[in-house]
Amino acid sequence: MPDLVSRARDGDPRAVARLISLVEDESPLLREVMAALAPHAGKARIIGITGSPGVGKSTSTNALVAELRKRDKRVGVLAVDPSSPFSGGALLGDRVRMQDHALDPDVYIRSMASRGHLGGLSWTTPQALRVLDAAGCDVILIETVGVGQSEVEIAGLADTTMVLLAPGMGDGIQAAKAGILEIGDLYVINKADRDGADQVRRDLRSMLSLGERREGAWRPPIVKTVAHKSQGLDEVVGEIEKHRAWLESSGELALRRTRRARDEIEAIAVTALRARWGDVHGRSELDELAAAVAAGESDPYRAADALLDTFTD
Amino acid sequence: MPDLVSRARDGDPRAVARLISLVEDESPLLREVMAALAPHAGKARIIGITGSPGVGKSTSTNALVAELRKRDKRVGVLAVDPSSPFSGGALLGDRVRMQDHALDPDVYIRSMASRGHLGGLSWTTPQALRVLDAAGCDVILIETVGVGQSEVEIAGLADTTMVLLAPGMGDGIQAAKAGILEIGDLYVINKADRDGADQVRRDLRSMLSLGERREGAWRPPIVKTVAHKSQGLDEVVGEIEKHRAWLESSGELALRRTRRARDEIEAIAVTALRARWGDVHGRSELDELAAAVAAGESDPYRAADALLDTFTD
Repeated sequence: MPDLVSRARDGDPRAVARLISLVEDESPLLREVMAALAPHAGKARIIGITGSPGVGKSTSTNALVAELRKRDKRVGVLAVDPSSPFSGGALLGDRVRMQDHALDPDVYIRSMASRGHLGGLSWTTPQALRVLDAAGCDVILIETVGVGQSEVEIAGLADTTMVLLAPGMGDGIQAAKAGILEIGDLYVINKADRDGADQVRRDLRSMLSLGERREGAWRPPIVKTVAHKSQGLDEVVGEIEKHRAWLESSGELALRRTRRARDEIEAIAVTALRARWGDVHGRSELDELAAAVAAGESDPYRAADALLDTFTD
Repeated sequence: MPDLVSRARDGDPRAVARLISLVEDESPLLREVMAALAPHAGKARIIGITGSPGVGKSTSTNALVAELRKRDKRVGVLAVDPSSPFSGGALLGDRVRMQDHALDPDVYIRSMASRGHLGGLSWTTPQALRVLDAAGCDVILIETVGVGQSEVEIAGLADTTMVLLAPGMGDGIQAAKAGILEIGDLYVINKADRDGADQVRRDLRSMLSLGERREGAWRPPIVKTVAHKSQGLDEVVGEIEKHRAWLESSGELALRRTRRARDEIEAIAVTALRARWGDVHGRSELDELAAAVAAGESDPYRAADALLDTFTD
């Protein structure tokens, strides 16, 4: 195990792959791995990429990787599918579009299912990010195929959250529904060579202007791209760098990273508790409490009290 | 408070509204309310309605309510927005389309934001369902504007999950990504008068046939509707009833309801713990642990151990 960690720190892709598999499998070895990696992490810039299906997320990620490689950055790509443990196949299909970078030793691409229930993304994803970070990635792109809650969670994990839109993907109200107006640090209108791109930009700008912003707050820029022609990605990288400078000067970077650590600690503690609850005195106390609530013989608050009592006994 | 509970049990809409507001506000009075309501709940049939933005979810819900009213059912509608605490406005816009039923005393419609972090839907939504259930609703339709994780969570709360699709909303792979193939008890192809409806049905059928099904398992039917013309809703209600009969005869109904109670108890217990962690010894132990992890001085496992220690001390 120490050998595996040291090889991962040297950037050996097979060692990195093995460590991320341990994360996915929620291996008991993770304690030791994370303790060894923690002092070497914290250097990578983490960029979240979200957007509805069809806006060109994979193509944009691919083009962004190319742009970052021009600048000689080592890049990690983590594609997380929070919706299903079974859709690895569909994600893999997307990955085919990333073949441009398959042979580049300074690009590490990984798809990951996120099986967690209560913990959701907060359980496994930060640990996978730590592996890539300690392995020397300068930038980690984290992409989710989900929308809604998973977008919000991605935003919680990233230093900079990039929200993709495209013309013809539904009106402004739909965008507001997905909650994206609160999470974007940077908005990218992809497929900007299509009709309607300027309208999307106008709608987005007027919706963004509705939100209240504190003095000194970041004002999310809107960039137009045509990812499959690699157009506009230099401007995207420029805006990511401006946001990074603001994160550092405003103290927001430290705040975000502490918040992220807090969520991760909580998720680990809660997972440990849930494991204990699932198997108290050889059988599941929780199952019995649940059956009583389902039958209307108890209520969930009383049952939760009983559950906490078994823990402190 | 006892008066409020008894008025809600008589179906007084203002009392129901007040109790759901207590749920939204995570009021400390909920303990007492839930204890009083629990013995009276468990009768309503809970139907989850999910689907991507644009498939006609609100229109379908509206038409389904009308169909259920023809059969003299009391109906509750709970529209949950898990993506954002701020998008109540957008949801309200949708509700305008439900005005058909605004004056019907046997239809109760409510939008609800779901602010929960770790708990997500599992924290507040089941409690709102219990209020509507104890208030005498025969059927409760629960609808989410989100997709991805929130769809999966809706499925966890419902007896029967109805997944809406429509022609022209993206190809089969997109559907698979959203994880809907694992959660639907019933598939509805809305806007079936448009080109491509038969293709959507063929694609869906072939994708559903790929999944393994145990002996005696439910085979999700596919129904075509044109919701804005109220076409096909009788068949939808018929399939919901067939699914209900299967749930009862297979024992799956009791399993699902126990599982739901278990998730709810856990969410309440975890929320209680998190409240304690947030404020230990007058200041937040968790914040200090998080700062140490963010600085690379500790790792999240060690911090989680320390957090659990403060709790058992």
